[in-house]
Amino acid sequence: MKIDVLTLFPNMFSGVFNESILGKANDKGIVNLNTINFRDFANNKHNTVDDYPYGGGAGMVLKPEPIFSAVENLITEGETNTKIVLMCPQGKKFDQKKAEELSKAQHLIFICGHYEGYDERIREHLVTDEISIGDYILTGGEIPAMVVIDSVVRLLPGVLGNETSVVSDSFSSGLLEYPQYTRPASFRGLDVPDVLLSGHHKNIDEWRLKESIRRTLERRPELFEKMKLSKEQLKYINELKDQSTKE
Amino acid sequence: MKIDVLTLFPNMFSGVFNESILGKANDKGIVNLNTINFRDFANNKHNTVDDYPYGGGAGMVLKPEPIFSAVENLITEGETNTKIVLMCPQGKKFDQKKAEELSKAQHLIFICGHYEGYDERIREHLVTDEISIGDYILTGGEIPAMVVIDSVVRLLPGVLGNETSVVSDSFSSGLLEYPQYTRPASFRGLDVPDVLLSGHHKNIDEWRLKESIRRTLERRPELFEKMKLSKEQLKYINELKDQSTKE
Repeated sequence: MKIDVLTLFPNMFSGVFNESILGKANDKGIVNLNTINFRDFANNKHNTVDDYPYGGGAGMVLKPEPIFSAVENLITEGETNTKIVLMCPQGKKFDQKKAEELSKAQHLIFICGHYEGYDERIREHLVTDEISIGDYILTGGEIPAMVVIDSVVRLLPGVLGNETSVVSDSFSSGLLEYPQYTRPASFRGLDVPDVLLSGHHKNIDEWRLKESIRRTLERRPELFEKMKLSKEQLKYINELKDQSTKE
Repeated sequence: MKIDVLTLFPNMFSGVFNESILGKANDKGIVNLNTINFRDFANNKHNTVDDYPYGGGAGMVLKPEPIFSAVENLITEGETNTKIVLMCPQGKKFDQKKAEELSKAQHLIFICGHYEGYDERIREHLVTDEISIGDYILTGGEIPAMVVIDSVVRLLPGVLGNETSVVSDSFSSGLLEYPQYTRPASFRGLDVPDVLLSGHHKNIDEWRLKESIRRTLERRPELFEKMKLSKEQLKYINELKDQSTKE
């Protein structure tokens, strides 16, 4: 997979692209990560990439030409299966399904604005996807692009190897993950629950399922709406709800 | 504000901490950004920071000692107004309100795991906040910590200056932002809407409000639930709904 990022701050990506998973995937040739400063495509004497908005108002707007030219320069003739992704607050909320969809593309091009808005013609006539990573205000699309790239690259064959992440459990079952403990069994008087030291696998599985349900009920009850629940899960949910009513 | 990040991959932060807003805020002394490799606090002969989970299962779990020691080493005696933030998928969904709350702290300490889970004693007895940036799987807490840090630092007095971001409009009004255009008025046959070139401010404001409402209706209708709507806004919403019924 080829991943190109259009940004005015290419150095922001140096750390993330060279370390850990992304650095290794790039070194192995599974992914080819690049940054492009679209100011190089400004094609005017002051290298201007933004201008005042028509109709007035605060802030600047990114001009269409440099971004159209930069993107077109990255696309090889006859190339298919390319996604041109605009990182923006008005975009569709990013989720794991979108990560899986993007992981099937051959070429991803990310467009990152910084402070500025985007000329609407970029949105309407150039990009294939508009993505927002969440409802919070950031200074640019660069860190959100890193989020999307990390989630996509870890799905590519050969990237994760045997480093299967326990973190991934949190969404694959639909429930939040149960509490984890490791050595020492007692740390400053704080002890690991007995059941986990018991070696009794059935009890351990039952405890973990109950704790997953408890945590999901407490923190993210809306996750249950999307799930098909087993009889066992339903039983625990009702038990926990009864307990909290009595308390 | 002092911001410390505990991570096994401190180099991941080099680009983001040295460029743009965060780089400038750090240079100006408004914020003091540091990374700490908590492997330096492992205190065992192989510098081990993780171990197998009690009760069995895939993946590794971060041990409590190195993280407790690293955090305690960062806290000055008598220090108050410190938040110790765990980046994790089970955390509370990050939003702008949380960014504002964190921006009032004097010292933020972020704990970033990578692949591994966290020993539950870290969660229960050390951290003050558990944060998730969204429902997608990432390889570690590092990029999510960058997201939170960027959103918090831009709120600190003196950081943004006059570079008021148009991007911020997307959440401050509760509606998604209207389409923006800049020069050229015609680009490859794609023209800027006449109203924006008219100089007629009342019409421009009306067009922008309608387009904001249209975009919000199309992309994020749930945002209306949280809003108090004016009579004018309600009128446009009903007009747009009528149109889409007739089409």
